[in-house]
Amino acid sequence: MEKKQISVCFSPFLYPLFRNDEAVVVVVDILRATSAMVTAFENGVVAMVPVAGIDEALSYKAKNYLVAGERNGEKQEGFDFGNSPFSYSREVVEGRKVAISTTNGTQAIVAAKEAYQLVIGAFLNLSAISKFLLREGRDVIVLCAGWKNRFNLEDSLFGGALVERLLASGQYEANCDSALAAFHLYERAQSDMNKYLAKSSHRNRLQHLNLEDDIKYCLTLDLCQCVPVLRNGELVRGDL
Amino acid sequence: MEKKQISVCFSPFLYPLFRNDEAVVVVVDILRATSAMVTAFENGVVAMVPVAGIDEALSYKAKNYLVAGERNGEKQEGFDFGNSPFSYSREVVEGRKVAISTTNGTQAIVAAKEAYQLVIGAFLNLSAISKFLLREGRDVIVLCAGWKNRFNLEDSLFGGALVERLLASGQYEANCDSALAAFHLYERAQSDMNKYLAKSSHRNRLQHLNLEDDIKYCLTLDLCQCVPVLRNGELVRGDL
Repeated sequence: MEKKQISVCFSPFLYPLFRNDEAVVVVVDILRATSAMVTAFENGVVAMVPVAGIDEALSYKAKNYLVAGERNGEKQEGFDFGNSPFSYSREVVEGRKVAISTTNGTQAIVAAKEAYQLVIGAFLNLSAISKFLLREGRDVIVLCAGWKNRFNLEDSLFGGALVERLLASGQYEANCDSALAAFHLYERAQSDMNKYLAKSSHRNRLQHLNLEDDIKYCLTLDLCQCVPVLRNGELVRGDL
Repeated sequence: MEKKQISVCFSPFLYPLFRNDEAVVVVVDILRATSAMVTAFENGVVAMVPVAGIDEALSYKAKNYLVAGERNGEKQEGFDFGNSPFSYSREVVEGRKVAISTTNGTQAIVAAKEAYQLVIGAFLNLSAISKFLLREGRDVIVLCAGWKNRFNLEDSLFGGALVERLLASGQYEANCDSALAAFHLYERAQSDMNKYLAKSSHRNRLQHLNLEDDIKYCLTLDLCQCVPVLRNGELVRGDL
């Protein structure tokens, strides 16, 4: 049987070069948008609507949505909470819908919304998403949100972790140089990602905001068993 | 003294995010455009004009230029030679001017032509270019030509090699995640780059064209002592 391809796209700017509307796209923004989304679904959120603009997000308040998100790592005025996964506790989000707008993550979702299927990835749901992808059996594109369209290490490491899982299945191959690079970076970093990322630019950006606990949480594997998927413009919990 | 920055830009598509007109930009297309250019200057070429289009390149024949280049790794009709560094022997190029158009390399030069200074890098002139950059003492952006605007391993490895050299000088720092990634990939690959690249996509593309000797040559360090620089739209030999 012909193997399926896994590719890693390092920036939403490059996505048009990778676009394949028959593929499953995994959007990743480890620090912190997609880690927060996965946490929210684990804690019982019903749906999340990714919106590009802040005003658009606020307009959802009238429809009884919680409104979440950040710009440059900080919560915006009028938002119920920012981008910290710890904000999405079961007490706050269970049974609710959330509109979310972030610097990088939601923009990446918008860029890839025409994909056959769009799912939300994080280290928190790495095993769940691998299982989901292996069941789908389609080509996979990991779309790294990056930092303002630039390459970042933490999203690339997630890409490498997923490449490792899918190659190990024997059902996938990686013919894309960026997938190989991500895989090799993950091999180097995996024993202590927190330490590996100590010099990375975005981690340092967040460190200035005192988010050490957030960072450690976002680099933890498999705390969550859910796979958020995009259906009709909103994220819902996918079937596993 | 404040340290200067070295950044690595993985694709001409991303260059607008890195652009800094006070920086020196090092354009690299290891397989094979910039390796060929460095070889040509080592063998006495007087000037090379990078042109985007094939017809534009051919128009230089009337001005007694040699015309060189390729599309998808193959020489074009009417061109004197393609992209193989071995074509640029002293017998052929000494004292001549060359117009060159390639799939990726010349496009990257055009993208960055507004830089304070634009120089041509390859493993073949790694030490020469490091020396040149340390003397200039400005921020450095390595612009990887990539493959049709996608990330490729060989250009990124060159970026990593240059990061290593400039960091070792103590005069530079790398605050850019892609510079760190390139550096780490180079650390892994440097003991046998040919073997490391065996799985890479562009190397395989060239392998099908029987270019093993070209590849080995392009991965050799410091065979050349020249640094081509862009002046008034044409590449000339820079002073060392």
